Amino acid sequence: MSGGPETDRLPQFQVYRAVAAALDEDLGQAGDITTQATIDADATATAVIMARQAGRIAGIQFAEAAFKTFDHGARFEETAGDGMLVEPGEPVARIEGNARALLTGERVALNYLCHLSGIASLTHRYMEKIAGTGAQVCCTRKTTPHLRAFEKYAVRMGGGANHRFTLSDAILIKDNHIAAAGGIGEAIARARAYAGHMIKIEVEVDSLDQLDQALKHEIDAVLLDNMDAATLAKAVKRAKGHAILEASGGVNLETVRAIAESGVDLISIGALTHSAPTLDLGLDWS
Amino acid sequence: MSGGPETDRLPQFQVYRAVAAALDEDLGQAGDITTQATIDADATATAVIMARQAGRIAGIQFAEAAFKTFDHGARFEETAGDGMLVEPGEPVARIEGNARALLTGERVALNYLCHLSGIASLTHRYMEKIAGTGAQVCCTRKTTPHLRAFEKYAVRMGGGANHRFTLSDAILIKDNHIAAAGGIGEAIARARAYAGHMIKIEVEVDSLDQLDQALKHEIDAVLLDNMDAATLAKAVKRAKGHAILEASGGVNLETVRAIAESGVDLISIGALTHSAPTLDLGLDWS
Amino acid sequence: MSGGPETDRLPQFQVYRAVAAALDEDLGQAGDITTQATIDADATATAVIMARQAGRIAGIQFAEAAFKTFDHGARFEETAGDGMLVEPGEPVARIEGNARALLTGERVALNYLCHLSGIASLTHRYMEKIAGTGAQVCCTRKTTPHLRAFEKYAVRMGGGANHRFTLSDAILIKDNHIAAAGGIGEAIARARAYAGHMIKIEVEVDSLDQLDQALKHEIDAVLLDNMDAATLAKAVKRAKGHAILEASGGVNLETVRAIAESGVDLISIGALTHSAPTLDLGLDWS
Amino acid sequence: MSGGPETDRLPQFQVYRAVAAALDEDLGQAGDITTQATIDADATATAVIMARQAGRIAGIQFAEAAFKTFDHGARFEETAGDGMLVEPGEPVARIEGNARALLTGERVALNYLCHLSGIASLTHRYMEKIAGTGAQVCCTRKTTPHLRAFEKYAVRMGGGANHRFTLSDAILIKDNHIAAAGGIGEAIARARAYAGHMIKIEVEVDSLDQLDQALKHEIDAVLLDNMDAATLAKAVKRAKGHAILEASGGVNLETVRAIAESGVDLISIGALTHSAPTLDLGLDWS
Amino acid sequence: MSGGPETDRLPQFQVYRAVAAALDEDLGQAGDITTQATIDADATATAVIMARQAGRIAGIQFAEAAFKTFDHGARFEETAGDGMLVEPGEPVARIEGNARALLTGERVALNYLCHLSGIASLTHRYMEKIAGTGAQVCCTRKTTPHLRAFEKYAVRMGGGANHRFTLSDAILIKDNHIAAAGGIGEAIARARAYAGHMIKIEVEVDSLDQLDQALKHEIDAVLLDNMDAATLAKAVKRAKGHAILEASGGVNLETVRAIAESGVDLISIGALTHSAPTLDLGLDWS
Amino acid sequence: MSGGPETDRLPQFQVYRAVAAALDEDLGQAGDITTQATIDADATATAVIMARQAGRIAGIQFAEAAFKTFDHGARFEETAGDGMLVEPGEPVARIEGNARALLTGERVALNYLCHLSGIASLTHRYMEKIAGTGAQVCCTRKTTPHLRAFEKYAVRMGGGANHRFTLSDAILIKDNHIAAAGGIGEAIARARAYAGHMIKIEVEVDSLDQLDQALKHEIDAVLLDNMDAATLAKAVKRAKGHAILEASGGVNLETVRAIAESGVDLISIGALTHSAPTLDLGLDWS
Repeated sequence: MSGGPETDRLPQFQVYRAVAAALDEDLGQAGDITTQATIDADATATAVIMARQAGRIAGIQFAEAAFKTFDHGARFEETAGDGMLVEPGEPVARIEGNARALLTGERVALNYLCHLSGIASLTHRYMEKIAGTGAQVCCTRKTTPHLRAFEKYAVRMGGGANHRFTLSDAILIKDNHIAAAGGIGEAIARARAYAGHMIKIEVEVDSLDQLDQALKHEIDAVLLDNMDAATLAKAVKRAKGHAILEASGGVNLETVRAIAESGVDLISIGALTHSAPTLDLGLDWS
Repeated sequence: MSGGPETDRLPQFQVYRAVAAALDEDLGQAGDITTQATIDADATATAVIMARQAGRIAGIQFAEAAFKTFDHGARFEETAGDGMLVEPGEPVARIEGNARALLTGERVALNYLCHLSGIASLTHRYMEKIAGTGAQVCCTRKTTPHLRAFEKYAVRMGGGANHRFTLSDAILIKDNHIAAAGGIGEAIARARAYAGHMIKIEVEVDSLDQLDQALKHEIDAVLLDNMDAATLAKAVKRAKGHAILEASGGVNLETVRAIAESGVDLISIGALTHSAPTLDLGLDWS
Repeated sequence: MSGGPETDRLPQFQVYRAVAAALDEDLGQAGDITTQATIDADATATAVIMARQAGRIAGIQFAEAAFKTFDHGARFEETAGDGMLVEPGEPVARIEGNARALLTGERVALNYLCHLSGIASLTHRYMEKIAGTGAQVCCTRKTTPHLRAFEKYAVRMGGGANHRFTLSDAILIKDNHIAAAGGIGEAIARARAYAGHMIKIEVEVDSLDQLDQALKHEIDAVLLDNMDAATLAKAVKRAKGHAILEASGGVNLETVRAIAESGVDLISIGALTHSAPTLDLGLDWS
Repeated sequence: MSGGPETDRLPQFQVYRAVAAALDEDLGQAGDITTQATIDADATATAVIMARQAGRIAGIQFAEAAFKTFDHGARFEETAGDGMLVEPGEPVARIEGNARALLTGERVALNYLCHLSGIASLTHRYMEKIAGTGAQVCCTRKTTPHLRAFEKYAVRMGGGANHRFTLSDAILIKDNHIAAAGGIGEAIARARAYAGHMIKIEVEVDSLDQLDQALKHEIDAVLLDNMDAATLAKAVKRAKGHAILEASGGVNLETVRAIAESGVDLISIGALTHSAPTLDLGLDWS
Repeated sequence: MSGGPETDRLPQFQVYRAVAAALDEDLGQAGDITTQATIDADATATAVIMARQAGRIAGIQFAEAAFKTFDHGARFEETAGDGMLVEPGEPVARIEGNARALLTGERVALNYLCHLSGIASLTHRYMEKIAGTGAQVCCTRKTTPHLRAFEKYAVRMGGGANHRFTLSDAILIKDNHIAAAGGIGEAIARARAYAGHMIKIEVEVDSLDQLDQALKHEIDAVLLDNMDAATLAKAVKRAKGHAILEASGGVNLETVRAIAESGVDLISIGALTHSAPTLDLGLDWS
Repeated sequence: MSGGPETDRLPQFQVYRAVAAALDEDLGQAGDITTQATIDADATATAVIMARQAGRIAGIQFAEAAFKTFDHGARFEETAGDGMLVEPGEPVARIEGNARALLTGERVALNYLCHLSGIASLTHRYMEKIAGTGAQVCCTRKTTPHLRAFEKYAVRMGGGANHRFTLSDAILIKDNHIAAAGGIGEAIARARAYAGHMIKIEVEVDSLDQLDQALKHEIDAVLLDNMDAATLAKAVKRAKGHAILEASGGVNLETVRAIAESGVDLISIGALTHSAPTLDLGLDWS
């Protein structure tokens, strides 16, 4: 998927449920004892989520939910919603409400927001690198356990595309499957016979020979694994129009443009979700 | 906490429960359709988790659980358990069992193991940098939502120390608390009156003046926020023996040794848990 | 999906979890008071699940789980596994174990097994009707809440195909989407831009004119809604080879063959999952 | 239970929780991608749930919850509440709200409503058949797993009575219990000694001889299993006034009146909940 | 219910699930840090659960589950199972297994066992007081939230009877219901019309006049609220044979015998479950 | 912790979640059938929670949640909030709303409120006994499973202090740990090396000799187990100023003052949470 902030919005009930679980994890059994000890129960406060680093925002709903779970009547105003770029010193959202609610909700709000914005920002950096090539980066199933739907959403917010969400979504035939089935053709045939009509089939190949074999069969996409840019270009020449082409392996911010220029449609990058550093955002109190 | 592999072991029932949730997320409703289509139900296989990068292992229990959830009788042999160092090309564990179980469990097994080993490895790199100084790096509450207990365990496996797990565990008085309470002394007094006798109190200060103020009161630890090495050294001179000293802010692999040499006890680093890249581990089939 | 008993098997941990929830629902807080009052705690028994009606089996794992949840050591031998046909009077499985376990687990075992076998059996009856036509019946999202994955599995066991499991799996553009987007072409374009590369697109049409419009665009499948067999045949002539063709609406055991003979690939039938009567299976005690 | 729409209402928090689980099942991880791609986020719409078939409504709260979970401010007006009869073409409810909320919530809303209304409608058809006899149909524990409370509520909405909800609710002594206890009298004695004072005891008998034996003991109800109408009439003559009489087995819309005219109090029918076809209701957009 | 240890046994899967939740609550996120620090991972130990006070045991399954959750291979031998009397110094169970498992599981094991045995013991003391009267004490819905099924089981282990488990189980008409319905007769009529045939009806009365009114209608039980022994005796004379008689209010160990001697069938006591002190049991290490 | 009503407030989302679980437990599958049968769906009512016994209130949020879960618009006015003392006949809260909501929510509301107020009241009685001594009573981990956080909150409301919430919170070295580690010094050293810097260490001793040994090491607190007042006084003399002193064992309302006068800081009492009788509160209808 390659939606954007104007089309996407996570289901609110799922966001609040995730936030409640994260708050349980952060509160422990006695709650925020520091805040309870030092802040009056009815004090109010205003705070602003500020960017301390340039990047792209994703996950603003989680921040809102973290504060409103403690203070339903709090005001939360987005100034930079999901999918928007921020510069250091720019505000992302302004919150006004019960002071304890703001202090106690802060860490969970930022843990989600910084993590997801980190993914959106890294995705965006990759997309900038390949601007104009027609290629798009996409994510993998190498996500943080329990956060896949949200992390893949963040990839979309960064301008990237989504690959499979689950093992149910599509067929992706790898070397082990081919070996067990007794050949590419046999594996594809078994997959086609097994999978429903709304299921696409992708085959992973690691050489041009394998690519040729795969292209003899009706498939939707090919995963070109660990090929250099030159080989990729050859693969594109042979396969373009027959199947969507996805490059994978050895991709980083230095190599991605050359890979994109080979003409592939997609470049899948596990690091988008498994190794993106958080975006540095903080809460400033006024 | 600063335990090690020989003392720590996550409760098995919690590991299996987490893995089941991660498997639900990865399987979707139709399961691993590629494997079901191409691999015979009773085929067996052997695979080895291999290090493709040097680092420190954490989370091997999750890998075992992911495979055994599908095949209770699978054999899982650790060759490099949690807290151990691996070099590229070294095996971490060997699994023998139902071929579908191995293929379907692979991604969840690696998602946990690579994520937690990434944290352990980064922690270990920091610890190597400050070897001999007597200081120890420690984690923060800037963790990935829903994974805090496991990420903090990974920090321990990397040789780091744990700070608070939850807001209930200890008092940490920051500027907002001080402002609301009407001064450092007042905030500490309120905290002392509120918190139980097994609760430690730490105060965050950002100047030597504030440190002096804080030291007038009975506190257990001081968080020295965003001070340079020279200022930290002065802080150590004034406070050593009166309170545990924790440095925080602006810490990276380049700066950490100078900070450690200032004499502080602990150096807390959010990046250990929020921005550690995964350790590259893969499953090799034989 | 159109798998069969030899390829499919539900994940055991998900079956046991579902069964535990169903047992909670059936036990109430005092448990099976009739059995506790009248059956000795250590009595053993043998029982056989018998078909009282001809049909196709699905869900045998649930029956096993229901009994074994109470008696881990019980013996459960399938004589007619999932996807197999049974005649009245034929045994499906034989259970030997603690007598209370058998009596208390009976209802949940049969509630799952009869429900899912009912779906498999109805699916199979439809498939028999269209034997030799090359068409296949398939299910819809009109499933019983909380049982979708299992009901769609039962459709596969009956020889049918699976359509989308969730709203995430594929694009299915209906009249409201077309109207809102401002035309078929626009809707398809927006869908293509939004959806990931592994997502197929299907468009619902209710006339040959609409079909012609749809076929101008690159789509994977067309849902021919509420067309009679003659119109379907015309649709097939125009579209075959360009898109998978799925007929829908007004399908029953009398009409299905004519629809299939029109040449469509798939015939989707909500009733497979929302209105299949249970297959009559009972537990005979020896 | 034999309540009606004027007395019954399911607890709202349980309805919303069930709906949230059903929405998770239907949404998958990416949500309603078709709607997100084609419908503007702030578009509004109006739709009407229409009866396409005559029947009795049950489950309207689920429909309301499905739409309001996505759009809290949506307007939902019932025109035919639970327990009311509808004719084809009659409206059941009118919904006005966010267009995406209506489209995305539609299937879950209808899956519950059509399923439960199907049960209420079938129950009602049976009740019409036996009008004037003084008998009432009642449900069994042969319900769809995870939906028992709601299905039994639907039976009440159709005018039927509820039998046991769980194994805890009442004693029902069957042949296995009698055999194990060593006779009807012994089984009843053990049950009476075991069960609390608010627990009723029913005994299943399959002959008039067994009935005579059972009536020698103090019991609340007798389940007359698989008797023809003539035998039932004899049973009624012997037992009326001594115990509630429930007929069971071989009941269908053709046989039910003769059974009712035998004078039994209740006729229990598993098919009410395990095999009721859904009531055909659809969402019309304006 | 008035079962005993020879008939009752809690479903094992529910016990293990409850214990897992209790262990989560007790472990926190870092686990048993004291034990992890000081006890070697592979040390073994033997311990005995000892009675330090006379009483009746209930909940031994929870103790076994607490230890075995950590060490599946631990040996657990009951010497005094549920429903048995123990004297101070008598062993209840002997456990042999991993030393950490024993130390870490100890508190949860004892928290359940001492709580439930406390209830069984208090129930037993009441039953001893009324020995020979033919009356039985019974519990109420005044239970500890989340523990009702287990607490009512403990009452049975103590020799007491169970009243309603839930509001669904039986009709209990109190003053507010009578007032709202417009009189006892009207309330009973509405209840009879509403409730299923397996539901008993009890009416609460606080005077002999009210009792007379209630007895004009067909009811199963009467709750005689806050009557002295003399009034109870009169009530018994009027009602015996027409309805089960339950006394309630002002019951304690001093008053219970006189109440029982009035001839009532049951004496319900909220304190059995809401105020029973724990039975003092401890773990002795050898 | 030793907070009070003015500082503490349980997180609302956790209270509502707990109440929903308790309502599920109390409602069963058919709901409050008595109320549904006899009370009109739109009737309104007013009721007052009244103290029937003197004591201290804790848990008023649960009562509010129980009623508002059924009737969001109900009015709930506290007249005696958490931490306040009530006399018999004094109102605690006044509720105005839907009559069914009030009747159906009553038991869960009171079960929480009476249980937690019982703990607060017993704690308060102990605190009154030791008024002026400077000592404070504190709770233990001997809590009712699943209710620890709420019970420890109730102890705070009664004026008591909280000890560890979980095994993660602090080190508490007991005899088994000492034996296994090979001595007090060794155990403390291992604990210090293992635990994080925000973790306090307490050592349990049962003689003055052991105390002397323990005091040779840097520890935060000592648990003086089962010492008489005279021995405690000697212990205080030796240890005061070096460690917090906590007395434990053999504490009751008669002995507590003498213990407190020995000069210890804390007196831990398991009975506060495991054996506190409920506070008698009832709902009066107007």
